Amino acid sequence: MADWHDEVFNDRVRFGLKIRRSLYSGQSPYQKIDIFESEQFGRTLTLDGIYMTSEGDEYFYHEMLVHPAMTTAPLIRRILIIGGGDGGTAREVLRYSEVERVVMVEIDSMVVEACKEYLPSIGTAWDDPRLEVVIQDGVAYVKEAQEEPFDVILLDGSDPVGPAEGLFGEDFYHGCERLLQPEGVFALQSESPVLFWDVFLSIVRTLRKIFGRADPYFGSVPIYGAGMWTWTYATRSVDPMMIIGERIERVEPLTRYYNREIHEAAFALPTEIKKELER
Amino acid sequence: MADWHDEVFNDRVRFGLKIRRSLYSGQSPYQKIDIFESEQFGRTLTLDGIYMTSEGDEYFYHEMLVHPAMTTAPLIRRILIIGGGDGGTAREVLRYSEVERVVMVEIDSMVVEACKEYLPSIGTAWDDPRLEVVIQDGVAYVKEAQEEPFDVILLDGSDPVGPAEGLFGEDFYHGCERLLQPEGVFALQSESPVLFWDVFLSIVRTLRKIFGRADPYFGSVPIYGAGMWTWTYATRSVDPMMIIGERIERVEPLTRYYNREIHEAAFALPTEIKKELER
Repeated sequence: MADWHDEVFNDRVRFGLKIRRSLYSGQSPYQKIDIFESEQFGRTLTLDGIYMTSEGDEYFYHEMLVHPAMTTAPLIRRILIIGGGDGGTAREVLRYSEVERVVMVEIDSMVVEACKEYLPSIGTAWDDPRLEVVIQDGVAYVKEAQEEPFDVILLDGSDPVGPAEGLFGEDFYHGCERLLQPEGVFALQSESPVLFWDVFLSIVRTLRKIFGRADPYFGSVPIYGAGMWTWTYATRSVDPMMIIGERIERVEPLTRYYNREIHEAAFALPTEIKKELER
Repeated sequence: MADWHDEVFNDRVRFGLKIRRSLYSGQSPYQKIDIFESEQFGRTLTLDGIYMTSEGDEYFYHEMLVHPAMTTAPLIRRILIIGGGDGGTAREVLRYSEVERVVMVEIDSMVVEACKEYLPSIGTAWDDPRLEVVIQDGVAYVKEAQEEPFDVILLDGSDPVGPAEGLFGEDFYHGCERLLQPEGVFALQSESPVLFWDVFLSIVRTLRKIFGRADPYFGSVPIYGAGMWTWTYATRSVDPMMIIGERIERVEPLTRYYNREIHEAAFALPTEIKKELER
């Protein structure tokens, strides 16, 4: 049926949304970009057919990527975002008045342009003077950048196929570690343990090797299919449970999903995952 | 494509599994029953095309329905299960040695027979002498039963369409309240707030009216699509956070998803749901 878009995982599971109409379709040097209006979640972005975000559910993902790091990192003056072309991650980061500079490194300018035009409710902070958008491959950026270290680095990338593949490699994580100050936090989406068990485990284990500490945390993103989704919080020295009180008090009135209880709950490990990570 | 089975929600969202082969297909007086082998989750049960459970993911659902009630109710000698035809709920309940009697009231004997034959890894406790299976409509049972009150009642029903519709009504909940001892716990699946916001709210609010206290709790069930799933814990006098230590210590080695941290985490409310329930 032409009026459904399905994302297929491993040729075994699929998740589909009924489409009301297509709003944008373009082919960049990196990927196929589509924005359509879905019955359930409103305007929805796919890259190479993979669901990225939608107006109706984007807050689940963006709030869970951003706020656990931002409410616990000792300093949050200088933030690096890799990916994040829809602008939702930058929006959540810029809610904090302590933030002085956000560098967002997105490989694909066509994604940014399409999202600015068709998903303005997600990227509401493009005009914030603290935000600098750099159109560059994140892998090259973290390898080469001569920047003062960042306080928080957020990896808001796609799945490990296509242009985002390098964002799952050990070299890339080493680059992030190099650009992070010693009391910094690196947070990233780390896939579904149900659909991508090996990828999930590999991310957590690699980050533990590089940073010393990496804690996966759990939530759900409706358009990411098959139940639970994970992010991972990697750090050399910060305790992800030590929420800074006055910071969470300021952000809680602004969020739709995230709050102190959700933060603490998200780090609870299902038994089989706990056992596997303890091996 | 004939080799996929999709469940469609509200004609807006669908979740599909690739099917290797069909194992069973039957039409009972109540519903169409199918069991097939899926690539992702192994043997999978659908009723009227709606995903019920699968070998590969059933523990998410059954453990979260059963254990929060069973690790907190002061007594767990007498348990009533409404629905639960695949046997997974009874299996989890019967892990506790304190349990003396389980009455399982399932409307559809064909579901029980099909699951016994084709899903033996889910219903592993059919032969436990403490289990009595009653083939009857749960709505009629709770209205008419002249039973000593139960310590825990678990509602393991389908969606509020078809034969399970009455299991979402106020009369039915009143019947459960009548059959529950004052220090008892009533737990049930309460749908997806993402896909069925009104149904979810109505369940929690109705139970609060009847029991005094009803706390939704959250988890994920991979085959139930669109991220988060909920159950609700209703009681007149029990604190769902007061986990009985020696009981959870005995059950934790037996579960695959549930543990003390998951129990405590599950009751954290996302901000928008908390606000709505406080109105």
